[in-house]
Amino acid sequence: MLGNFIYSNPTKLYFGDNALSGLREELPKYGKNVLFVYGGGSIKKNGIYDEVTTILKECDKNIIEDAGVMPNPTVEKLYEGCERARKCKADLILAVGGGSVCDYAKAVSVSAYCDQDPWEKYFLHMEDVDNKIIPVGCVLTMVGTGSEMNGGSVITNRAQKLKIGHIFKDNVMPKFSILNPVYTFSVPKYQMISGFFDIMSHILEQYFSGDDDNTSDYIMEGLLKSLIYSTKKAIDDPIDYEARSNIMWIATWALNTLVEKGKTTDWEVHMIGQSVGAYTDAAHGMTLSSVSIPYYRFIMPYGIHKFKRYAINVWNVKTDGKTDREIASEGLERMKQYMKDLGLIMNVKDLGVTEDMLEGIAEGTFLLDGGYKRLTKQDVIHILKESMSVQ
Amino acid sequence: MLGNFIYSNPTKLYFGDNALSGLREELPKYGKNVLFVYGGGSIKKNGIYDEVTTILKECDKNIIEDAGVMPNPTVEKLYEGCERARKCKADLILAVGGGSVCDYAKAVSVSAYCDQDPWEKYFLHMEDVDNKIIPVGCVLTMVGTGSEMNGGSVITNRAQKLKIGHIFKDNVMPKFSILNPVYTFSVPKYQMISGFFDIMSHILEQYFSGDDDNTSDYIMEGLLKSLIYSTKKAIDDPIDYEARSNIMWIATWALNTLVEKGKTTDWEVHMIGQSVGAYTDAAHGMTLSSVSIPYYRFIMPYGIHKFKRYAINVWNVKTDGKTDREIASEGLERMKQYMKDLGLIMNVKDLGVTEDMLEGIAEGTFLLDGGYKRLTKQDVIHILKESMSVQ
Repeated sequence: MLGNFIYSNPTKLYFGDNALSGLREELPKYGKNVLFVYGGGSIKKNGIYDEVTTILKECDKNIIEDAGVMPNPTVEKLYEGCERARKCKADLILAVGGGSVCDYAKAVSVSAYCDQDPWEKYFLHMEDVDNKIIPVGCVLTMVGTGSEMNGGSVITNRAQKLKIGHIFKDNVMPKFSILNPVYTFSVPKYQMISGFFDIMSHILEQYFSGDDDNTSDYIMEGLLKSLIYSTKKAIDDPIDYEARSNIMWIATWALNTLVEKGKTTDWEVHMIGQSVGAYTDAAHGMTLSSVSIPYYRFIMPYGIHKFKRYAINVWNVKTDGKTDREIASEGLERMKQYMKDLGLIMNVKDLGVTEDMLEGIAEGTFLLDGGYKRLTKQDVIHILKESMSVQ
Repeated sequence: MLGNFIYSNPTKLYFGDNALSGLREELPKYGKNVLFVYGGGSIKKNGIYDEVTTILKECDKNIIEDAGVMPNPTVEKLYEGCERARKCKADLILAVGGGSVCDYAKAVSVSAYCDQDPWEKYFLHMEDVDNKIIPVGCVLTMVGTGSEMNGGSVITNRAQKLKIGHIFKDNVMPKFSILNPVYTFSVPKYQMISGFFDIMSHILEQYFSGDDDNTSDYIMEGLLKSLIYSTKKAIDDPIDYEARSNIMWIATWALNTLVEKGKTTDWEVHMIGQSVGAYTDAAHGMTLSSVSIPYYRFIMPYGIHKFKRYAINVWNVKTDGKTDREIASEGLERMKQYMKDLGLIMNVKDLGVTEDMLEGIAEGTFLLDGGYKRLTKQDVIHILKESMSVQ
């Protein structure tokens, strides 16, 4: 655990198939006006909308709806939400949905009372929050992003062709989150496995960084093994409560700042994936899966000790008579097979990427320093081409 | 992750060799009067006392000292601390020391404004806190108990021959804790390894419980592997910062409620150990180490799947051609060898236990239901006798 750091995560989690009852505990702590934020309306089909509004009414709250939050929340939607939040004098923002809805709720929370353009202040310039923050609570219906227990918020500005995430401090983290694994049962398979790989990528992009092997690495190996075990079960039976509940719990702990402690963290796969996403509008997790194996093969020689450890501790690769490189490569091969078995997209062409986009995707990829090798633009193009040759 | 649960842990941690600077961030949040709680005065020898008082003065605080907290804080000391806290109108209790000092600070925090006898209300009857709570902050100088990030507090009533721990809720957890690994360098070897085994026992007593194998089990295997790796290094070189910092971090996460989620938890080793402690006044971790191997050998047949998993995942036992029982036993043998190498006490006779005490120790052992087998009094005597025969 090298370096100095602060750990602070005040989000209260209510977990389990009866988790929504926690809303009755939490609501009395806030004023009457609740901005009820959700997405495309799937919560009306599966009954969650009714369950939540029933409790809000029981707790004597004024419900102000803010529906239609899109998968990549836009700055225009943010401005609209801010106006609504101010107008109704929201005492609490209740986000009911997946990571995008939670991200949006946090963006409104810090932006509603910002006296400058919040896009410029909090996303473009990443400034600290110095205005009133409206508290946020979440009812999670999809897993993957970890937004339910962190300060992260990603907003997209289409006019400027920018998608920027700001990791706010602990005062912006949700005050509470309701995690009911049953709510995730109805997510379609494509989105489900996309979320699964988002979780895996969050862990791997923290794991494959740093010179020392500290407690965070050991915790991440545990999370990875549990994730692999449970996702295999969830593919066979999507309503396996035990499997889905473990996955939901892993998703939260994969990105709530715990496992980053003592790590430099990489995040280059997310950078390439986001640039692929800007060109294809593909599901976030699939943009990550499609570039991961080529990326890790490329950086493997620069962090061979960690890839060897990964192969042994996570993928149970036997070491007898093999070189470090052989052991490490076998680990990545097993990961690739697991990903294919899950049904993940392994080739960026399947997301709509064409040769003529490569230059632009590489140009749009932020190049970071936390991993085992800082990429060049040419390296990114190489990785994308490798993905395009995957069978 | 079976069952419904709440996770809430608002303690803010400042970690690293510069962690004490966090005190300057925290102190302005509280009023002028700080009850400065510490133990036998070792912090005066190693300079921590001076460092802390300098910052308190810089932050313009009134320092009211409450020294002399003993290893097992007594109810008499608690009464005295309550009076002092009320008299000085303490706005913050700052605990500087190990687990006992932190435990004591939390006990004073809930008891100072209790209008009944706090021993009866909060320890004997384990009631919820309904009076004013004085906020607590900790500067940790010894690792093991995890008291720096949980609601636990153990108080001893010698007249009643009772030592009772109450796990209070999140509103009693420390508001902040300062974790500087360097502060643990000067702990004498006997206390150091005793603390190491306390950590291991905390993890094992949560791990060896429950029918399902969920994410908490995987996280615990990671913590155990990291602990084994780093304690071996710390024995060779007690001022190995990397090793001691990992151990400090593991100790916190071993008992801050994370890894208990989804588990029934056992705690029978702590129950036997505490009863041994009542007869011998031995170091807490050594009472645990002296009974652990006989205890786990005894319950192994009732949780064979988990002991097999433990052997493979934590101790790297090879499985080829072996029965489950052989694999599981080999895991315990490796654990025993590791404990001996560390220098832990393996035989209760070495703590002063004699044949004539066995009946009383067994009588004083609380028998719990969370593990793989509920013990009888005779089982406890058998386990103690097994310990007495260890070479």
